[in-house]
Amino acid sequence: MADYRAPVKDALFTLRHIGQLEELSKTERYAHADYETVASVLEEQGRFMQEVFGPTNAIGDREGLKWSPEGVAVPEPLKAAYAKFVEAGWQGLNAEVEYGGAGFPESVFSVAAEFETAANGALTMAPGLTTGAIECLQAWGSEEQKEVYLRKLVTGEWTGTMNLTEPQAGSDVGLCTTKAVPQGDGTYLVTGTKIYISFGEHDMTDNIVHLVLARTPDAPAGTKGISLFIVPKFLVEEDGSIGRRNDVKCVSIEHKMGIHASPTCVMSYGDDGGAIGYLVGEENQGLRAMFTMMNSARIAVGIQGVALGDAAYQKALVYAQERRQGREVGGDSKEPALIIAHPDVRRMLLFMRSHIEAMRSLIVYNAVAIDFSRALEGEEAEQWGEIAELLTPVTKAWCTDVGMEVTSTALQVFGGMGYVEETGVAQHFRDMRIAPIYEGTNGIQAMDLVGRKLPMRMGGVVGDHFSRIRALDAELAAAGEEFASVRTQLAASVDALEEATNWLMNNGLADPKQALAGATPYLAMFGIVTGGWLLARLALAAKGELDAGSNDTAYLSAKVTEARYYAEQHLPRAAGLLGAVTAGAGDLFAVDAESLASV
Amino acid sequence: MADYRAPVKDALFTLRHIGQLEELSKTERYAHADYETVASVLEEQGRFMQEVFGPTNAIGDREGLKWSPEGVAVPEPLKAAYAKFVEAGWQGLNAEVEYGGAGFPESVFSVAAEFETAANGALTMAPGLTTGAIECLQAWGSEEQKEVYLRKLVTGEWTGTMNLTEPQAGSDVGLCTTKAVPQGDGTYLVTGTKIYISFGEHDMTDNIVHLVLARTPDAPAGTKGISLFIVPKFLVEEDGSIGRRNDVKCVSIEHKMGIHASPTCVMSYGDDGGAIGYLVGEENQGLRAMFTMMNSARIAVGIQGVALGDAAYQKALVYAQERRQGREVGGDSKEPALIIAHPDVRRMLLFMRSHIEAMRSLIVYNAVAIDFSRALEGEEAEQWGEIAELLTPVTKAWCTDVGMEVTSTALQVFGGMGYVEETGVAQHFRDMRIAPIYEGTNGIQAMDLVGRKLPMRMGGVVGDHFSRIRALDAELAAAGEEFASVRTQLAASVDALEEATNWLMNNGLADPKQALAGATPYLAMFGIVTGGWLLARLALAAKGELDAGSNDTAYLSAKVTEARYYAEQHLPRAAGLLGAVTAGAGDLFAVDAESLASV
Repeated sequence: MADYRAPVKDALFTLRHIGQLEELSKTERYAHADYETVASVLEEQGRFMQEVFGPTNAIGDREGLKWSPEGVAVPEPLKAAYAKFVEAGWQGLNAEVEYGGAGFPESVFSVAAEFETAANGALTMAPGLTTGAIECLQAWGSEEQKEVYLRKLVTGEWTGTMNLTEPQAGSDVGLCTTKAVPQGDGTYLVTGTKIYISFGEHDMTDNIVHLVLARTPDAPAGTKGISLFIVPKFLVEEDGSIGRRNDVKCVSIEHKMGIHASPTCVMSYGDDGGAIGYLVGEENQGLRAMFTMMNSARIAVGIQGVALGDAAYQKALVYAQERRQGREVGGDSKEPALIIAHPDVRRMLLFMRSHIEAMRSLIVYNAVAIDFSRALEGEEAEQWGEIAELLTPVTKAWCTDVGMEVTSTALQVFGGMGYVEETGVAQHFRDMRIAPIYEGTNGIQAMDLVGRKLPMRMGGVVGDHFSRIRALDAELAAAGEEFASVRTQLAASVDALEEATNWLMNNGLADPKQALAGATPYLAMFGIVTGGWLLARLALAAKGELDAGSNDTAYLSAKVTEARYYAEQHLPRAAGLLGAVTAGAGDLFAVDAESLASV
Repeated sequence: MADYRAPVKDALFTLRHIGQLEELSKTERYAHADYETVASVLEEQGRFMQEVFGPTNAIGDREGLKWSPEGVAVPEPLKAAYAKFVEAGWQGLNAEVEYGGAGFPESVFSVAAEFETAANGALTMAPGLTTGAIECLQAWGSEEQKEVYLRKLVTGEWTGTMNLTEPQAGSDVGLCTTKAVPQGDGTYLVTGTKIYISFGEHDMTDNIVHLVLARTPDAPAGTKGISLFIVPKFLVEEDGSIGRRNDVKCVSIEHKMGIHASPTCVMSYGDDGGAIGYLVGEENQGLRAMFTMMNSARIAVGIQGVALGDAAYQKALVYAQERRQGREVGGDSKEPALIIAHPDVRRMLLFMRSHIEAMRSLIVYNAVAIDFSRALEGEEAEQWGEIAELLTPVTKAWCTDVGMEVTSTALQVFGGMGYVEETGVAQHFRDMRIAPIYEGTNGIQAMDLVGRKLPMRMGGVVGDHFSRIRALDAELAAAGEEFASVRTQLAASVDALEEATNWLMNNGLADPKQALAGATPYLAMFGIVTGGWLLARLALAAKGELDAGSNDTAYLSAKVTEARYYAEQHLPRAAGLLGAVTAGAGDLFAVDAESLASV
């Protein structure tokens, strides 16, 4: 089966034309991230991922993990790959230079994270969680915590975890009951049980830095009484060496449908009196610290959509060019045709290809909004920050829903072979299914978009987004007949989206239930339209290069075709969702639980 | 976790109001299948399935199958359940009375098959394939073959298999190369390899009746040179006793994503000189014999959509009434709410519930069309036969695509628990994923609908279908304000569907590629609209019962709400697919394979 190849050229095209890489590298903060440097870093990183992480993906799925009271054993080839990852220093790509990172922009990192995830999605959970811990400590850790823990996380020598969920506290973090009792010496004793802790235990590194949400005695109820603690697996001595085992252990791991190489741990803190924890920031400010990393964690999950989608698509495209079955419609040959000759297979391929580029564009746009919000100042920075906030739930939910569709379509291209595990495409499909769930289910994302993001600046933020989409119309008009249908469909679909938005704003104020009832189809509309806009921008950029005399004709023309295919075949679906957005909550609550049952 | 409960009341409601059960039992052929009898049979069968098949489902998934050169071992609890199934005589429910069957209509059988599949989808593959073999032998077997093989299949003492696929011949059966050489004594020697043979080998019965497609020497190329043979695992002596082993064996089984208890076998015929086979019907008429059972096999796969969808939904509904998380929007309580109180969870539940009823209605309508085509005569029979032909690809593809969505949505209701295997919902999702592939991929079904079914009677058959949908308008109008949006949306969506149909007919004649390019979104439109029509019919029937004074108010009112929810929130999506249907093949073929690649 074809190995994964990191799509560096595609990614760079997106970074330039959606990620405004050249603009970004004119800022002081990202002056080192010029196009040439970024290109060579991504070439190198992409090669590393396809050569080192890639070959371990199927092994991790097949062998899985071994739990024992002593810990969790990761298959040897994955441990070896992770060791090379640490040696190569890829963990620190977007970490602050001051603590050993390379300080690259989030937009560039988003592409690197895509390559890494596509090569081995389960293993990438370890560096992914570490990235979250890095961001958290960069923002909220004390100087001492940064020296002791952050530096080791940035090198990848230690990994990090996020301990939020408890059996009764999933989507609702405020129900957390883990206790942290101050010992008078600045430390706390932490006791409680956390579940769904990815890489909560493993044998790839000497230490693990657990970030744990817990309540101090007399803390207020709900989310206002939550504090954040560092609880290392092994305590760290004054000289930085590894000391004694802390009172934390992994009591079991989950048997899951996919990401078999990522241990999903039940963690027990304080079975023998209490695990020693160190407060991060101030008491009762834990949720704020969590929010720091939430945005990028959600983008990271969105990245799984494009990454696993592309990994599956690459396999399907190769298969479609090898497998012969059926006659070509309208063809002369009596021999079986390659299945890529069949219109329905072509449709599946173009669906996947265009949506992969749309997902990557959305992610890069979302990530570069964070970059500009950091690199610029004042109002400009604020506006970019708003874009990032607005788009994050869409990136997370739309890219994971589309990622499911893409991996499922890739599997379908294989026919019966896709259902058998040997091609690897079934693994991508299984691995993908967690992404619409974790880091806030897609339903939670939709509520976030409707309940928190639409009201930003009284609708001004979302209004600006629509204005930017509409502003493309002049360029599309100028680009000629080739773009006529893109122009028509984009205009019609943004109208429908705006109508949906207005309905939600008008009805949601009086009764939030009315708006929340339509949140999920609304998010889907938002993703479809924004994806179409971004593909149109890529297509215009491609046409610009063609008009300027580029001889990369087939590659660039394909971008125009993709945008048109998407506009004609997918943008009209946005209007098809309007009814679902504006139906309100009445019928949803008209049927009681008993009458909902199959009887 | 909640056990599966066969929804007998729902099924009977559908059989009465969509399946016209009372009308059907007025025919001579189905005079024994009156409402009371059918109700008691389904009660009994449903109880059997939930009590005997149901508890073995997770066991089969977890333990899987053991292959050895001697054969395939099925887990003991599944063997025991199958033995009880034979003892109870459920296999013969729809088989001809003459050979030991109970002769019930296909519509009634479709519901029984749903219960069976929902209880244990993987195990049901064995009786399911047997049903196919029964139909084939009923139609094409000689008297002797019926006495020797058919009777044993009808009791379930022996199982049947279908051997079509070969490594190079999947969707394209004409590429079959298995050989059958006449021996002069009326028998043939069969040699070749068949793949993806469900229950090709197992230890649940004393014998297995393989139906095998093969070519005789000098047979014409392609589908016109294919003949069908009975190749029993053990030869049968003159007195009906089991004789020596035939030269056929299972050389391996596939490692699949789901249906772990259904052995997917690579079958080798004639490794030691040739397996003895008996011609069914005439030489070179094998495909015709295959077509006999293809329609009901495709409906059987469609049934997997509603069956596994409902099994998953039942679990999700229970969980939504047990799990507490988050506050109720607009509620007073500070305590965590049951998640069923959240609008987004309600939306998921109503989506599943309404689509399960739509799927079941489509299946019952399709199946009863077969029944009426058999029970009536002349033009009436012919018209019903046309309906069955038209709908079969829609039943297969739409119900399996929707079945994927429903099982996936059920999994989503569970959040992280859904991805962990212990709830059983993940198994339904994995088991479901094969259904859009086998018995002709959903792409093949779409091509069948557009390429073969739309042209029937120069578009007259599909036109009649639309007329029937439009004819409901008067009833909807008379039913009052409650049905106003159903009326509007049904009219608009059938308009869009008719526009799509006309486009395909006009453009497909000149260039089939243009029409085939839009086949898949067209089938989706067709399913959405037909589903909405059938739900509207159920709702009108419910309202009729309410108006007539029924006090089953909550149950019947829910049907009206479901139809309205579906009409307002799902029917508009049909028009959203029009662009994809009518875009043509141009852009699909504008990008060459190289430029489709991720680079």
